[in-house]
Amino acid sequence: MIIVMNSNAPQAAIDRVSSEIERMGLRPHLSSGKFRTVIGAMGEEGLLDQNHLASLDGVEKVVPIMKPYKLASREFHEDDSVVEVGGGKVPKVKVGGPHAACIAGPCAVENEEMLNKIARHVRDGGATILRGGVYKPRTSPYSFQGLGLQALKWMRATGDELGMPICVEVMDTRQVADMEPLVDCFQIGARNMQNFDLLREVGKTRKPVLLKRGLAATVKDWLLSAEYVLSQGNRGVILCERGIKTFEDSIRYSLDVTSIAVAQQLSHLPIIVDPSHAAGKRDYVASLALAGMAAGANGVIVEVHYCPSEAQCDGPQALLPEVFKELMGQLRQVAAVHKREFAEIGEVAASA
Amino acid sequence: MIIVMNSNAPQAAIDRVSSEIERMGLRPHLSSGKFRTVIGAMGEEGLLDQNHLASLDGVEKVVPIMKPYKLASREFHEDDSVVEVGGGKVPKVKVGGPHAACIAGPCAVENEEMLNKIARHVRDGGATILRGGVYKPRTSPYSFQGLGLQALKWMRATGDELGMPICVEVMDTRQVADMEPLVDCFQIGARNMQNFDLLREVGKTRKPVLLKRGLAATVKDWLLSAEYVLSQGNRGVILCERGIKTFEDSIRYSLDVTSIAVAQQLSHLPIIVDPSHAAGKRDYVASLALAGMAAGANGVIVEVHYCPSEAQCDGPQALLPEVFKELMGQLRQVAAVHKREFAEIGEVAASA
Amino acid sequence: MIIVMNSNAPQAAIDRVSSEIERMGLRPHLSSGKFRTVIGAMGEEGLLDQNHLASLDGVEKVVPIMKPYKLASREFHEDDSVVEVGGGKVPKVKVGGPHAACIAGPCAVENEEMLNKIARHVRDGGATILRGGVYKPRTSPYSFQGLGLQALKWMRATGDELGMPICVEVMDTRQVADMEPLVDCFQIGARNMQNFDLLREVGKTRKPVLLKRGLAATVKDWLLSAEYVLSQGNRGVILCERGIKTFEDSIRYSLDVTSIAVAQQLSHLPIIVDPSHAAGKRDYVASLALAGMAAGANGVIVEVHYCPSEAQCDGPQALLPEVFKELMGQLRQVAAVHKREFAEIGEVAASA
Amino acid sequence: MIIVMNSNAPQAAIDRVSSEIERMGLRPHLSSGKFRTVIGAMGEEGLLDQNHLASLDGVEKVVPIMKPYKLASREFHEDDSVVEVGGGKVPKVKVGGPHAACIAGPCAVENEEMLNKIARHVRDGGATILRGGVYKPRTSPYSFQGLGLQALKWMRATGDELGMPICVEVMDTRQVADMEPLVDCFQIGARNMQNFDLLREVGKTRKPVLLKRGLAATVKDWLLSAEYVLSQGNRGVILCERGIKTFEDSIRYSLDVTSIAVAQQLSHLPIIVDPSHAAGKRDYVASLALAGMAAGANGVIVEVHYCPSEAQCDGPQALLPEVFKELMGQLRQVAAVHKREFAEIGEVAASA
Repeated sequence: MIIVMNSNAPQAAIDRVSSEIERMGLRPHLSSGKFRTVIGAMGEEGLLDQNHLASLDGVEKVVPIMKPYKLASREFHEDDSVVEVGGGKVPKVKVGGPHAACIAGPCAVENEEMLNKIARHVRDGGATILRGGVYKPRTSPYSFQGLGLQALKWMRATGDELGMPICVEVMDTRQVADMEPLVDCFQIGARNMQNFDLLREVGKTRKPVLLKRGLAATVKDWLLSAEYVLSQGNRGVILCERGIKTFEDSIRYSLDVTSIAVAQQLSHLPIIVDPSHAAGKRDYVASLALAGMAAGANGVIVEVHYCPSEAQCDGPQALLPEVFKELMGQLRQVAAVHKREFAEIGEVAASA
Repeated sequence: MIIVMNSNAPQAAIDRVSSEIERMGLRPHLSSGKFRTVIGAMGEEGLLDQNHLASLDGVEKVVPIMKPYKLASREFHEDDSVVEVGGGKVPKVKVGGPHAACIAGPCAVENEEMLNKIARHVRDGGATILRGGVYKPRTSPYSFQGLGLQALKWMRATGDELGMPICVEVMDTRQVADMEPLVDCFQIGARNMQNFDLLREVGKTRKPVLLKRGLAATVKDWLLSAEYVLSQGNRGVILCERGIKTFEDSIRYSLDVTSIAVAQQLSHLPIIVDPSHAAGKRDYVASLALAGMAAGANGVIVEVHYCPSEAQCDGPQALLPEVFKELMGQLRQVAAVHKREFAEIGEVAASA
Repeated sequence: MIIVMNSNAPQAAIDRVSSEIERMGLRPHLSSGKFRTVIGAMGEEGLLDQNHLASLDGVEKVVPIMKPYKLASREFHEDDSVVEVGGGKVPKVKVGGPHAACIAGPCAVENEEMLNKIARHVRDGGATILRGGVYKPRTSPYSFQGLGLQALKWMRATGDELGMPICVEVMDTRQVADMEPLVDCFQIGARNMQNFDLLREVGKTRKPVLLKRGLAATVKDWLLSAEYVLSQGNRGVILCERGIKTFEDSIRYSLDVTSIAVAQQLSHLPIIVDPSHAAGKRDYVASLALAGMAAGANGVIVEVHYCPSEAQCDGPQALLPEVFKELMGQLRQVAAVHKREFAEIGEVAASA
Repeated sequence: MIIVMNSNAPQAAIDRVSSEIERMGLRPHLSSGKFRTVIGAMGEEGLLDQNHLASLDGVEKVVPIMKPYKLASREFHEDDSVVEVGGGKVPKVKVGGPHAACIAGPCAVENEEMLNKIARHVRDGGATILRGGVYKPRTSPYSFQGLGLQALKWMRATGDELGMPICVEVMDTRQVADMEPLVDCFQIGARNMQNFDLLREVGKTRKPVLLKRGLAATVKDWLLSAEYVLSQGNRGVILCERGIKTFEDSIRYSLDVTSIAVAQQLSHLPIIVDPSHAAGKRDYVASLALAGMAAGANGVIVEVHYCPSEAQCDGPQALLPEVFKELMGQLRQVAAVHKREFAEIGEVAASA
């Protein structure tokens, strides 16, 4: 950690910072320039209390040198991590490194028949993991909040029938115990990225966790949230970029592909993109999914909904099954540029 | 709600939107301009599914006319709400309308003696409600996470002794039941502003809720979160502006006083400011507190920490007791411009 | 335009808005709902003064329906525009529709020899247009400000020698006349995107204009700036996305690929990406360039600098020539997904 | 400057950075920690090329210690600067330190009579400097662009008649010479904050410059723009905060009072606020003006427009003269908290 002193900090203030650094078990290292003194704290930076140092008299700013997360960092684990989703009645699907994965399904599970129909469509289109919401995070208390445990049981049955692991969002610490035996992968939504109790609770399970990035979170914040899960002993974290708030008012969120490149340099964790919840318009889903894979993502999570002749699809961002299938073909082409491959559902089952 | 059609939307698409509006129980109202058709949906807008309408063919955009929150809106309740914090052994403190309140105390409760000492300082300085963290939301899993229930009991004892209601942050739905009998006011932190299960859970209690604004939330998002609490029957919501993320990198967050003016026009709920957690530097706390009151806030929440001779204050944003006292004098002057008044601790006790 | 009245607006206020709409030459169209009145203004929206309407008593908000730009919109010109850069001694390079183009060169022109060397490298790597800064927009008055007209003459000579059109940034209205005969394409930097006098001045020339997006501009703002150029009669506008400000502090700017998809839906103008100035780190340039093309861009503009054995490359974002060449191969693969093709320098010359 | 090396940077890379620092005339200072090496560069930081150092192999990041601006910094000039606006036929008005100033007038000058009428209103209300736009920066090329030199002459005549210095926006380097003899203070708009040629050009004049902050600029960017003006020898820079882009969509911009506190700590330059152009709604102007003064500003710039019985005020943010007058009273109360005083027009004239 580097402590920059004010240009007019007296010697007593400099001495005080030095002695505090020593008290915390590190060695202070002074550099007195023409204009100000800079103090380096050499040793295990984690021992320092940055807030306390910043509160001392004469301190202008404190610049950390080490990364504040450890288990999530590429310095701790140099190679790309590969997370396995599934097992038991359903095959294990690999996500990470050269293994790209497509997770698809409806936004919310509305009934068993619709779920089964969509699940077959996405499996035929090339998805290997099934998604579907049973608890819905809604900004308005008056919106549909999901069907809960009943819908989760339909997800489990459908996944088992079709040989697809299932990925389902958890919203409350009190849901974790009920959900753990039923899901193959927990999903943490963007608005819960810093719900620290929830992160700890899923960290205590041994099911993988798909961790969406908060809508205004930095990559550092995101990796610190991953660290909450990892630090509980659960090493199966998959990062998911789903768009950030920007000033653009013609769409919902902006898929931030720059963060994919940054996160992959700083961390070994696999990262996928969610183009459906980013812009929130069907027309943009393909472009954004392709951009995410081109930036280096390890896969995508996409909303798909079929269209019975008498009704329009619900959800302005859901893809029609045939559009989804075509997109999968293009995604395979782009993944190849980075030597990544999407498994076929048959291969996955065979390798299980 | 107004549905703007694409410039080349066919008649069939226009008819389809109209019939969907009728199916939901409203009346469609077409205006065919030279360039495009605009459809107004007349009636109870809450009956409409905006997402569904946006997903229909030929729809360019959907513009809601009504506000998505109701109980929080000034249209529902024209006059300023006044929320009472306290009761029982401690006096009731009014927040809202002409009643300004100052909530103060340490960031985190570290031990009972320190708490008692700081509590006396803030009461002497002019605060009427005591704050203090017992569960701490920390971005890093390796940081101090608070002392929990033990510290809460110290808060209760100190509040009772000094005649100050207490305000304490809740982080997890599982803490609500234990905390409810001990606190006078729940605090919901910025990172939990959209933790919807937690909002519902405190909404089921009858203790007031101090709801901090999320770091990238709009006023609409914030009022929708307030609506979650209100819709459970708890009418004691106090909004708290505590800074938003901006591009300014020399401070932590930027206190957004514009949102105070906006929230007060849209909502009847009282609103206070937290200058300590905004910029994160002691030097800026007074300016920001004054600016918040000048913009029209109903009070402040401030961190205070005494400084024993042998140690520096912890927390780069905590005020020294004597600085806090001086600030209170300035705040009273600014409050007077808006005909608001901070109660003295004696008055509050007498009126109880 | 739609005018939403306050819920308690009196009839006189409604009448007044209606008569103002009529005075401006449009027809008012009232929809009186249960809660408020909404007034549609039917006709040529451009005749309305939105600011004036918003200032009338009882008006809650004014929602424009038409787009504020015309010549830049896809409604005005349905097919993708193709802009030709070059002519005379150098070949014409097409940008737009199926024609992808790569613009490359040094950040700033430092001397003629270095320029010539880099130009040969980028031509060999696959670039067909040469870039190089002669006036540099620098945030600090003490930084290198470019070599000016002399460097521009070296650019012209190098372009002519190698058969590459040149693209050079203009910063001041007073430079336009001198530059016009020498450049093949003007570049407007992000910080000048709303320098309206400069936009008008290059709009009066007949050389194409590469218009970078401002660092916090919406797509609408960007297209309005394009409209400034187009409205002067210059139809050769190429949009360039170069990154936006976000809260991510580990990079300079975030390349916003979502805006590419949005801009291509709203406008017929070609759009390219600048991955070098976005993140500002060499390591990220390839990922971002690929992501931009995958999102649907019509090309890239990249900084390249050779590395003599005795010196490091200047500029943390410049690519080495061999890395650039490899990237071009990957870009061709991704462009193929969208049926776009980068011309080879030979083809361009032959078709000239 | 501090150079943080990658954790796996080889000794050769460390040596290379050290020798580059020496080559630039500073002394390298190595601190080899357990995990990585940090190199301090001791001496005149302005001699270093940060970009070049960041481009060297093995460098993770470069952290500047010194501020990149000099003349604008409080380290260069410890006391608050006081800028005088006016002289000759009109009195000199002081802005800065204990001297608060109110600049007021119409948004755009539409005709001489209206200007004269508004000018009398604002003088009576307590303004001592007259504002009025003659060249208007408009995002759309089809909007009213101002009346130019003719309107400027009306401004000059009105200012002379009423004894008020005038402040007028300049947009193009080519306007500076014509405007210099006529204005008492140049205004640079937010969108031109980084129009570096324009900054340099007004820096060459000896008339004060009101420099508005860019809509997404940091305080550092803003002070660097001030440095452009100061470095040309013009020491009369007045900073003006006028709102920043945030995610709040119910207003135009958010007045950023935090930046006032920050700018006043970093710089000696006077700073005023523009509440009219921030939120863009009349209802919010008073709250924001008061908040700005409470945060410590040295004055305000406000739009005022009278309302003849037969017409509404143009401009949704303009105050009525009587509202303006009342606001001035409140502003005086708040200014007193910081021991600042708004001069009366009579005092100013007398002291001239």
